[in-house]
Amino acid sequence: MLGKVASAIGGADGRIGAVDLVELDSGKTLRDITVEAADASDWRRILDAIETVDGARVIDTTDRTFMVHLGGKIEMHNKQPLRTREDLSMTYTPGVARVCQAIAEDRTKAFQYTIKRNTVAVVSDGTAVLGLGDIGPEGAMPVMEGKCMLFKEFGAVDAFPICLDSRDPDEIVRAVELIAPAFGGVNLEDISAPRCFEIEARLQAALDIPVFHDDQHGTAVVVLAALINACKLTGRRLEDVRVAIVGIGAAGIAVARMLIAAGVTTIVGADSRGALHTERSDYADGTMPPMKRWFAEATNREGRDGGPVDLLDGADLMIGLSGARVLPARALAAMNDDAMVFAMANPNPEVSPDEAAPFVRIMATGRSDYPNQINNVLCFPGIFRGALDVRAPRITEGMKMAAARAIAGIVSDDELREDYIIPSVFNRDVAPAVAGAVAEQAKESGEATAEHEVGFASTDTEQLRSG
Amino acid sequence: MLGKVASAIGGADGRIGAVDLVELDSGKTLRDITVEAADASDWRRILDAIETVDGARVIDTTDRTFMVHLGGKIEMHNKQPLRTREDLSMTYTPGVARVCQAIAEDRTKAFQYTIKRNTVAVVSDGTAVLGLGDIGPEGAMPVMEGKCMLFKEFGAVDAFPICLDSRDPDEIVRAVELIAPAFGGVNLEDISAPRCFEIEARLQAALDIPVFHDDQHGTAVVVLAALINACKLTGRRLEDVRVAIVGIGAAGIAVARMLIAAGVTTIVGADSRGALHTERSDYADGTMPPMKRWFAEATNREGRDGGPVDLLDGADLMIGLSGARVLPARALAAMNDDAMVFAMANPNPEVSPDEAAPFVRIMATGRSDYPNQINNVLCFPGIFRGALDVRAPRITEGMKMAAARAIAGIVSDDELREDYIIPSVFNRDVAPAVAGAVAEQAKESGEATAEHEVGFASTDTEQLRSG
Repeated sequence: MLGKVASAIGGADGRIGAVDLVELDSGKTLRDITVEAADASDWRRILDAIETVDGARVIDTTDRTFMVHLGGKIEMHNKQPLRTREDLSMTYTPGVARVCQAIAEDRTKAFQYTIKRNTVAVVSDGTAVLGLGDIGPEGAMPVMEGKCMLFKEFGAVDAFPICLDSRDPDEIVRAVELIAPAFGGVNLEDISAPRCFEIEARLQAALDIPVFHDDQHGTAVVVLAALINACKLTGRRLEDVRVAIVGIGAAGIAVARMLIAAGVTTIVGADSRGALHTERSDYADGTMPPMKRWFAEATNREGRDGGPVDLLDGADLMIGLSGARVLPARALAAMNDDAMVFAMANPNPEVSPDEAAPFVRIMATGRSDYPNQINNVLCFPGIFRGALDVRAPRITEGMKMAAARAIAGIVSDDELREDYIIPSVFNRDVAPAVAGAVAEQAKESGEATAEHEVGFASTDTEQLRSG
Repeated sequence: MLGKVASAIGGADGRIGAVDLVELDSGKTLRDITVEAADASDWRRILDAIETVDGARVIDTTDRTFMVHLGGKIEMHNKQPLRTREDLSMTYTPGVARVCQAIAEDRTKAFQYTIKRNTVAVVSDGTAVLGLGDIGPEGAMPVMEGKCMLFKEFGAVDAFPICLDSRDPDEIVRAVELIAPAFGGVNLEDISAPRCFEIEARLQAALDIPVFHDDQHGTAVVVLAALINACKLTGRRLEDVRVAIVGIGAAGIAVARMLIAAGVTTIVGADSRGALHTERSDYADGTMPPMKRWFAEATNREGRDGGPVDLLDGADLMIGLSGARVLPARALAAMNDDAMVFAMANPNPEVSPDEAAPFVRIMATGRSDYPNQINNVLCFPGIFRGALDVRAPRITEGMKMAAARAIAGIVSDDELREDYIIPSVFNRDVAPAVAGAVAEQAKESGEATAEHEVGFASTDTEQLRSG
C-alpha cells in the first residue's frame, strides 16, 4: 500500500520526505507522510492522486509553512530575571528612576541603558512585497518578521517589524521620526518606488541613526561583491566591464550608483519601456521621473536604444532586476566572451540557468537551488552590526563599499570558481567580516561616534563605573 | 579591618549585602562589598565614611542598577531555528509568500500567522514618568522596557516599547494608528492628563484592538480589588462606604469611575486646589477642565468644601493618588472607626504607614516594603492575556470589574487579614485568574471574537488544517 501511495504522490510531482507510522489497527495503517509540492495546484493534484489509490484515504493534512508562522516567528525575551522584590526594584520602580534621570539629562545615554543600542526597526508599508506587490501592512508582516529573524540569527541585532498603515510619504516619514527614540537604526523594506527614495532621504536627514533601504543598497552591495569576484575570475578590471541592467526600479538605480562609485564606466539600462537615454520622454511634457532621469544622464554615453535584448549586444555583464523569464536564453549569445549573467528576479530569474548555461561563463541568481546565490542576507545583518557597534549615524558609500569588499573577500583566490563567486548565506564568517569592515571604515571616515564596540556578544561594562 | 569598614558603612546608613574576598596579597586585602544606599547623597556619604577609615581605600565602584540596564533589559528571540535552506525557505522566501497572500486576502489572519496575536505596544510620550514628570521619550524607555518585562514574566505577553517623540495628541494618535498592524493591543503609559483621556478615547474608536491606559484603569482595578477585600474584612458593603480621594489626576478620575460602577455612592475628592464641587471655578470664565467637571458632577452630593484634611472627616476610606506626605497622620483621627487608608503615592505615600498605624485598621500603599502593596502589576498582564486569548477588540467596564474580583478572590476568606487584603505581586496565581475571568466576561458579553484561546503557553494548531 505504501508503495502504491508513494507512486501516486511521485506521479503527481510530489517529493516525499519523512514517512512515520502513526497507528496500526485492525488491518488499517495510519501514516504521516511529509510531501513537498511546488505550489498549491500541485498540492491539489497530489491529494487527488492519493484518493485514486484503492484502499488509501487522506485523513487530514497540515501545511508546514503555515505551521511555522503560527503566532508569528519572533518573540520578546527578558534579559534579566524578575523573580524577587530586589529584581523588581532594580529593573522597575524605584531603581529605574535613576536610570531614567540619567538619560533625561543626556539623551545619548539611551545608547548605553536602553535597547536603542542594539535595536533596528524593520519598516514597511507593504506596497512592494516580494513578487506580490501591494499587499498592505498586515500582509507584509510575515516577510518583516522573517527579516527580523535574519537580523538576529546572522547579526545578533534585535529587530522589530513596523508595518505602517499608510502609503503617504509624509505620514510614513513622520511616524518613523516619532518612534525613533527606541531604535538605533531603521531598515526600510519593500516600499515601492519612487516613494522609497524620498522616504529614505528625508528620514536620514531627520534622524541621527542609520536609515538603510535594503532593497536598494543591500542589493547593490551584494551585486558589487559578486562582480568583484567575477571580474577577478575572468581577468577583467571594473573600469572595463560593459554592463547591461534589465529592470530600472529602486534596486536597478542603486546598483548603477554603486557600480559607478566602484569605478564601472560603461552601463546601459532598460525598463519595460526599453533603453534609458536622455532623449526619452516618459510623460506627455517630455520629462521622466527624477530617478530615471538621473539614470539616463549617468549611463548610456553611446545613446543606445532598443529593448533589453538589444542592450546585450557587446555586454560583459547582464544584471537582471526585473521579472521572470523576460530574456530568451539565446539572446545571451550576443554578449562578449566569458559572459557574466546575474539574473536576480525572484523566485524565477530573467533567464533559466539551465538554458543560459551554453552562453555564459558565470551565472548567478537569487535562488538557493542554483550556485552563486546573490542574496541580501549576506549584507544587511553585518552592515547594521558594524554601524551599531561604532554608533555610526548613517551608512555611507564608503561603508557599503567596505561591506561589498568584505563579502567578496570571504571567497579566497584558490576557492574562486565559476560556480563559487559569492559565499553561501549560511557562511558564518560573512557577517563578522562585513561588520568589522563597516565599523573600521566608519572609524576611518570619522562616522564612528562611540569609543566602544558591542559586537556579536552584546554586553560590556563600560561606563558603569562611578564613585 | 573589615569590621571597621563595615561600621563606617553602617554609620553612614549603608546596608551591607554580600562581601567577597577578591585578592589577598602582600598584606593587602581586596574585597568586593555590595552596599545598598537609599539615594545618591547617602551613597556619597558612605564612600566618604570608608575613606575616613585608616588603611582602607575604595578602589572602584559599580552601580548594580545601571549594570542591569546596560544595553536594555529586553531582546528579540527567534521562535524557529534558521540553520538550513529549508528553514530559510519556510520562514522567509519563497515559502513566506503564501502566508503573506493568505493575510492579504483576509487581514484578520494576521492574528493567526503573525506576532499580532500576542504582541502589545507599550506607548508613552514620556510626559508623566513615575514621579519624574516630563522627561522625554528616551528618558521614559527604561520604565517602558520594565513594563514589557512584566508583561512577559507575568502574562506571557510579548510587549514592545514605543516611546514617541511628540507631545501633540494628534501626532500621537496618528502614529499609533499607523503602527497598529503589528500589534494585538496598546497599553498607554505615563502620558500626562488631560491629553491621556483624549488619546485613549480616539485610539479606541479608531482601532479594533484593545487600548488601555494603565495609569488610569490598571490603578482603578487594583484599588477596587483591595477595597472589595477591605470591605469584607470590616463588614462593610460597597454601597455604604464613604470615600475621600486625595489627588484627582488621571488615576483619581478612573478610580472614581470604577468605584461608582461597582456600587459606591458616596465619594468626595480634592486636588491641589481643594475639594471638587460643581460651584468651583478653575478658570477665569468660571469653568473647569472637562474631566474635573465630570468628577465634580458625579461625586460630592453634599457639596463639601475645604482641603484634603477636611474631607477625611467621616470618611471610611482615604485613597491617596497625589504626592509624598501631603497628609499629617493625626488628620486620620477624624475618619470613621475601622478606617481604611490606601496611600498610593510612589515612592513615598501620602502618610507614613508607621505614623498612620494608631488611627487606621487597614493600611495599604504602593510600596513593596510594607504589607498590602496595591500595584498595577497585579492587573495589566492578566487583563491583556485574557483579552488577547479571546481576541477582544476592547477592554470593557465588565472585563475590568471581572479582573478586580479575580484579584480580590485570590485572597481566601480564611487568609484575609488587616495586613493581607491584596495578593503579592509575585503570586503566580493572580495573572491566570485575571486572564480567565477577563476572557470569560468577554465571551459572556459578546466581546470575544476568537474561538480559540492562546493562553500562557502560546502555540496551538487550530486553522493549520487544510485539504
